[in-house]
Amino acid sequence: MRIVEKIRALQECADAERAAGGRIALVPTLGGLHAGHVSLIEEARRRADRVWVSIFLNPTQFDDPDDLERYPRSFEADLTTCRAAGVDLVFAPDADEVYRVDHETAVEVAELSRPLCGAARPGHFRAVCTVVAKLLLAAKPHVAVFGEKDFQQLAVIRRMVRDLNFDVEIVGVPTVREADGLALSSRNARLDPEARQQAAVLARALDAAEAAVAAGERDAARLVRLLEAEIGRAPRAEIDYAELRDPETLGAVPARLEGPVLAVLAVFMRPASGAGPGVRLLDNRVLRPPPDV
Amino acid sequence: MRIVEKIRALQECADAERAAGGRIALVPTLGGLHAGHVSLIEEARRRADRVWVSIFLNPTQFDDPDDLERYPRSFEADLTTCRAAGVDLVFAPDADEVYRVDHETAVEVAELSRPLCGAARPGHFRAVCTVVAKLLLAAKPHVAVFGEKDFQQLAVIRRMVRDLNFDVEIVGVPTVREADGLALSSRNARLDPEARQQAAVLARALDAAEAAVAAGERDAARLVRLLEAEIGRAPRAEIDYAELRDPETLGAVPARLEGPVLAVLAVFMRPASGAGPGVRLLDNRVLRPPPDV
Repeated sequence: MRIVEKIRALQECADAERAAGGRIALVPTLGGLHAGHVSLIEEARRRADRVWVSIFLNPTQFDDPDDLERYPRSFEADLTTCRAAGVDLVFAPDADEVYRVDHETAVEVAELSRPLCGAARPGHFRAVCTVVAKLLLAAKPHVAVFGEKDFQQLAVIRRMVRDLNFDVEIVGVPTVREADGLALSSRNARLDPEARQQAAVLARALDAAEAAVAAGERDAARLVRLLEAEIGRAPRAEIDYAELRDPETLGAVPARLEGPVLAVLAVFMRPASGAGPGVRLLDNRVLRPPPDV
Repeated sequence: MRIVEKIRALQECADAERAAGGRIALVPTLGGLHAGHVSLIEEARRRADRVWVSIFLNPTQFDDPDDLERYPRSFEADLTTCRAAGVDLVFAPDADEVYRVDHETAVEVAELSRPLCGAARPGHFRAVCTVVAKLLLAAKPHVAVFGEKDFQQLAVIRRMVRDLNFDVEIVGVPTVREADGLALSSRNARLDPEARQQAAVLARALDAAEAAVAAGERDAARLVRLLEAEIGRAPRAEIDYAELRDPETLGAVPARLEGPVLAVLAVFMRPASGAGPGVRLLDNRVLRPPPDV
């Protein structure tokens, strides 16, 4: 497995691979690799000849310095994970390589970046779009693979790629979960045992909403109240948002469901002490009403 | 000469050309081609196997609808110019192909876009960066060629390309001039005979500043007053800006010149009637103080 630290060297690898007719799949990550990332790598393997993983804890997309500070750093373990998963190349630049001191270019997707995590984390998606554009132009992949857990991020990246004419296929991969339903996330490592146990409430709330829709519920406001009530059962959970959104536009949904809607959750698991904002977890599910009989 | 209207078709041309080992140079234009564009095409020819010209009157970069309305449209003549200049491919998309109805992605270079034309034309460089990024991703050129007449545009594009890791060489080509020094521009066609005659004042002002620097002048404020005084000799000319700037950063220059500085001019040639803003012309020159003896 090759490890590349410089953008120019990566572009030369890409040119050589493409000249030889090889198809490249890129899996962009912040590091802290877990089984969710491995499922992205496996999907990448199915879609390309070469699987490249970028490991770059992008500082600009952390609106909260504390969150960046506490993000898991595990570079050697990440390399072991990549080797075991059959990754061909790891791109691991340092921050100075990615952002020159007079870096001043940004890429922004206006509307899709506005609600949900965009409202909660100002500038977050602007930073994500900018770094993903840079990674796509550095690695020149045919395919790039992202997790559906970060649903809004995936939607924003798809739109950026379409709007700017990136000739890259963007692939979303279903969320990998623990046995109790908790979506895998690097941030889960920061949960104390009690918060970890209660964190399964996100998936249970989505299960409940899904079951209600399957049973005929069409009222959007009642479904939101159901999500809120289910999350409310976990004393350590504090809702950042719990909403229904259009799966394509992330816009508002009609009061009565007419087709698939996205249920999206962002929940803080508060520290046991009650002090500080806790660990912010995301989850989502597309709810598909059965056809009216 | 091939004419391509669709982005996907252009990307396929680029892939085929690259697979065959061909080097592509792109000359992005708004149409209204003149001898200045031909010099860009000639430079492109020296640097690549294939010369591609895009002709797209990008509506989003016109802050003034009137200016867009009056911009010269000459598609058939432009094709004739391209054929005569040995262009291999013209990319001529319509606006619906370039901007889908829900297009919402923008690329922005923050600091370099702020002064000069960026201050005079809000949103202009954001629109230029976005469309140039799109053209580079559609045509996948090895080289892209721009005129130095639009000096700030060239600086902004260079920075965007560097910051986002575009693997494209950006080449600037010296301004082509009429016999009296007037820089070629599509907008010159809109000058009435008297305004056309007086428009040579921009180049004469730059000549005067250059001569003063060669003769030992180092005082930035006196050089600006000289530019203003020279332009003031033309009764129909109205200065939008006349400034000295750092050629790399476009930032302020020291009160006493220590090295090369960029003299930049934007001047309205007023209509004979006095009504309306007139035709806005640009010119610039790098002034290089001789070494102190």
